[in-house]
Amino acid sequence: MKAIVLREPEGPKNLRYEEVEIPKPKADEVLIKLHYAALNRRDVFISYGRYPRTKLPSILGSDGAGEVVARGENVKNVEEGSRVVINPGLAWGDQEAHPGPNFHILGMPVDGTFAEYVVVPAAQVYPKPEHLTWEEAAALPLAGVTAYRAVVTRGQVQAGETVLISGIGSGVALYALQMALAKGANVYVTSGSDEKIERAIRLGAAGGVNYRKEGWVKRLREMIGGADLIVDGVAGPGFTQLIEVTNPGGRIVSYGATNGSVPELIMRGVFSRQMDIRGTTMGSPRDFANMLELYAKHQLRPVIDRRYPLEEAAEAMLRMEQGLNFGKITLKIVDS
Amino acid sequence: MKAIVLREPEGPKNLRYEEVEIPKPKADEVLIKLHYAALNRRDVFISYGRYPRTKLPSILGSDGAGEVVARGENVKNVEEGSRVVINPGLAWGDQEAHPGPNFHILGMPVDGTFAEYVVVPAAQVYPKPEHLTWEEAAALPLAGVTAYRAVVTRGQVQAGETVLISGIGSGVALYALQMALAKGANVYVTSGSDEKIERAIRLGAAGGVNYRKEGWVKRLREMIGGADLIVDGVAGPGFTQLIEVTNPGGRIVSYGATNGSVPELIMRGVFSRQMDIRGTTMGSPRDFANMLELYAKHQLRPVIDRRYPLEEAAEAMLRMEQGLNFGKITLKIVDS
Repeated sequence: MKAIVLREPEGPKNLRYEEVEIPKPKADEVLIKLHYAALNRRDVFISYGRYPRTKLPSILGSDGAGEVVARGENVKNVEEGSRVVINPGLAWGDQEAHPGPNFHILGMPVDGTFAEYVVVPAAQVYPKPEHLTWEEAAALPLAGVTAYRAVVTRGQVQAGETVLISGIGSGVALYALQMALAKGANVYVTSGSDEKIERAIRLGAAGGVNYRKEGWVKRLREMIGGADLIVDGVAGPGFTQLIEVTNPGGRIVSYGATNGSVPELIMRGVFSRQMDIRGTTMGSPRDFANMLELYAKHQLRPVIDRRYPLEEAAEAMLRMEQGLNFGKITLKIVDS
Repeated sequence: MKAIVLREPEGPKNLRYEEVEIPKPKADEVLIKLHYAALNRRDVFISYGRYPRTKLPSILGSDGAGEVVARGENVKNVEEGSRVVINPGLAWGDQEAHPGPNFHILGMPVDGTFAEYVVVPAAQVYPKPEHLTWEEAAALPLAGVTAYRAVVTRGQVQAGETVLISGIGSGVALYALQMALAKGANVYVTSGSDEKIERAIRLGAAGGVNYRKEGWVKRLREMIGGADLIVDGVAGPGFTQLIEVTNPGGRIVSYGATNGSVPELIMRGVFSRQMDIRGTTMGSPRDFANMLELYAKHQLRPVIDRRYPLEEAAEAMLRMEQGLNFGKITLKIVDS
């Protein structure tokens, strides 16, 4: 089969489109013929070797959707021919509050979805939501479950609340926007791009501010008053401003730190507001199932940024690395 | 009456023991003849003018217990002669999650308990717990409600959990220790003093480490594994180590920052643990009532550090300022 293989941790440029062997499902696994895959920022990090358990060579990719074409002898609940989407969070464990010690993510250290075929434990596959195309279904898993856990499970969003989503344009941020809107919240966004803010407003955001412009915090406060829930994957120096616009009793859910550590945490700002900073990453199998249900119930559709053929995965990754995307970048594997 | 009056914001040394007029209760207020008062770190801050709404001259003091000797014409539910303890959190408002805009604390900007008499709204008084002396009852309010909200309402301590309380010796930390033990947790402590750790162990702590000693984080981790709940009023540079010993899915409840801001918040440590940092300060009327109930149910008694006569309040404040106390410092106002 064809696959995108990481041989040296030298970034997207050195990813190779190669012929490799089709993997064989073990007793509890299924073999999936993939229709589409999708990119995540994680893939970019991994391509530079910034992952503690880097294994080389590896096939990247956490997101995918396709058809089950073979199954191990113990698999009972998944039929051959099933049209499925893959939950990329493997071995979450038995606690809802946090993953167990064996938790890992499809696409490193185990071979992922940037390939014609992938094997995963049968428990990881879920029926493809009927209202979604193959491409949309493939775009949903990792960022969708991350956003669901951030907004619903950890963020406990309530109808009528004011929600702020920072860095709109990333997959997680856009899913968070859709979910918070579906739950009846008033949602505002920040971005370094006026165009991305405009697009978010067309998707239902009530407004947004550009954090590259002078006085953005003041403008944000005038616009929203204060936020009951902030969903942030950025951290870095701007985190202090997020605390400043949090309402008393509010919460910031943090799912990432693309801008690095917070240079100073003014704890007085946290305790005087009686607010929470809640960390989250990925999601449990229950989060994944609930996320699919929410998307089906509200007939939500992922925002697709751009589609590349599988062999152009390196170019697709460069687009993600540069933060040019608004929505998910997908890889087309078969015509469908 | 005699009272401790702050005239210039120059610290404990300049507090004066003066003759002032006995205050008169307004329609919804009661006049209390105080038996004992107790000190809080807040009083020290205020004595330096480090309070946004400093009003001079003022009578300091948030904690007190005594007898109702007069009442305003609208007061129905509190009899003269009632033996009461005062909830020092005034005008909390109607939200449990956070205080409202008019929230303030007895002892600045309104006159407090370092005096022979004090007036408070009748809604602020609660029957003195019968198992406590006047001195113990007076020692409980501010630190007790703060600890209750930190450990129970915000910390959601569960039986069998591992709890770490930093900076043992302060009033809040010791109440947090007692409450966490009463709720069935295994409680560990940190302190800069071996003697304070020993005393905490005699009160029921399972162990503790001295954060002034090399390698304390490693020793703490060997001792406790990891903490499900950390109750911290210190913040500052050591906060990073608290994150490092938090279990996945755990939480740190922060009720203060005596060591200042956290110089760097490594957000990856927060989100990879799926942990919470929860800010809290003071507590609602419900927290106060629940705290008294917990102390009665388990027949808990405040730890008293040292007793001073009212006229020596300045000296008592210096002891607190130097952090020498283990437990509450009280002021005796009448012989009882």
